[in-house]
Amino acid sequence: MKPYIGSYPFEVETFQVDYTGGLSFGFLANKMLITAGNHANERGFGKERLSADGKTWVLSRLAIEMYEYPNEGEKYHVETWVEGVTRLFTSRNFRVLDKDMRVIGYARSTWALIDIATRQPADLNTLYDGALAAYGHDAECPIKGVSRSRVSATEPTGTFMPLYCDIDYNGHLNSVKYIEHILNELPLDIFRSHMIHRVEVSYSAECFHREHLAIFMDKKEESHEYDVEIRKEGGEVACRAKIIFKVKD
Amino acid sequence: MKPYIGSYPFEVETFQVDYTGGLSFGFLANKMLITAGNHANERGFGKERLSADGKTWVLSRLAIEMYEYPNEGEKYHVETWVEGVTRLFTSRNFRVLDKDMRVIGYARSTWALIDIATRQPADLNTLYDGALAAYGHDAECPIKGVSRSRVSATEPTGTFMPLYCDIDYNGHLNSVKYIEHILNELPLDIFRSHMIHRVEVSYSAECFHREHLAIFMDKKEESHEYDVEIRKEGGEVACRAKIIFKVKD
Repeated sequence: MKPYIGSYPFEVETFQVDYTGGLSFGFLANKMLITAGNHANERGFGKERLSADGKTWVLSRLAIEMYEYPNEGEKYHVETWVEGVTRLFTSRNFRVLDKDMRVIGYARSTWALIDIATRQPADLNTLYDGALAAYGHDAECPIKGVSRSRVSATEPTGTFMPLYCDIDYNGHLNSVKYIEHILNELPLDIFRSHMIHRVEVSYSAECFHREHLAIFMDKKEESHEYDVEIRKEGGEVACRAKIIFKVKD
Repeated sequence: MKPYIGSYPFEVETFQVDYTGGLSFGFLANKMLITAGNHANERGFGKERLSADGKTWVLSRLAIEMYEYPNEGEKYHVETWVEGVTRLFTSRNFRVLDKDMRVIGYARSTWALIDIATRQPADLNTLYDGALAAYGHDAECPIKGVSRSRVSATEPTGTFMPLYCDIDYNGHLNSVKYIEHILNELPLDIFRSHMIHRVEVSYSAECFHREHLAIFMDKKEESHEYDVEIRKEGGEVACRAKIIFKVKD
């Protein structure tokens, strides 16, 4: 067996920072999903093997909590491991370390495995003779999972359509782009004075090219906390999210 | 002195491909700009030294021509060198090589150096006692520079506003995002049947957060060639571009 925890080094390249100079949240989330894919491939339950069997991983929930961000040119590490497996879902956790190997963030994610043709979920306990379950590991991940907040706003703060550059090879809006489109709706100044401390996302529907989507948002004035829903034209919720900011040091 | 040509290895990561599975054009263009920055920094005329002197490089023109694209998981290399220097502009060329070191593309770019406070251009021949000029090198780059096409369309095909995720640390629309917003306006199907063979961009104005921008486009029916302008509300041209597609093999 491979080690439970996979550790992947990265460096913050030019153009991976936002306008305040820190690693952009979208790139960080992408790196986490990349490490998830690599970790799974290296252990025999990744996309490479699954796609040959007509199956694919679907990201269901994601919670990321960051205490600081690496800056342009700095190295950092993303570590990931499988926390546990139930019949329909597996939880995968993450730890982000800075160049000195200090922990600067954690994340929790929940995934289902579906049959690409039938869209039916697969039984994860028995997947590949328990190959996935055998990697369950309880390294420390002291953050909460995704909460169940609802949005009361009845008017959208903005709309968008997934365009060519938003669409992944499945023809759907890329998971991280949901987050980026939400961040785009927030007041620009907040990224100067505050850092993104925590992001939660529950994905409930796939979104398609040039589909009309609306962003609904409740802001808690004092706490710089935003509850958000992306809704389809008929009102169906495509994702629920929560963004919590913290004043920069 | 360092070698004239800098060579930088990359790998096509998950999420760096478009919906057809090949390296997305935006990521490729970003990698070129990253190698330009690294090459310049390593030779003493990059952002690190210049920003201490209150100066910054400004990308003026970019022409990229690709014959094929690496796929997800494949390694590739971007090579770059300074072609020549005049008083106000320097030309920097690129070569893209696949995993077997076969050339799969070239690019030409033109840059000016400006004083950040006064926006006045600097004399490049005398910069750092001719440090930049000393690196002029004539490796093969058999593609044309940016042409001078004009757009006759009087109605925009679409509009957009630069949002948080489009804005770089200068507070402007990132150079590559101009290209991505143009690609987003093209019919999605063309990326399935055709590859982006050549992209030309002439940058003429900086664009800002939530500024209203319109995309004007002439299409040459037979050749799958698009001439494009991004214009500001008053009509000022922010950039001119040409996108040429080629049927996929």
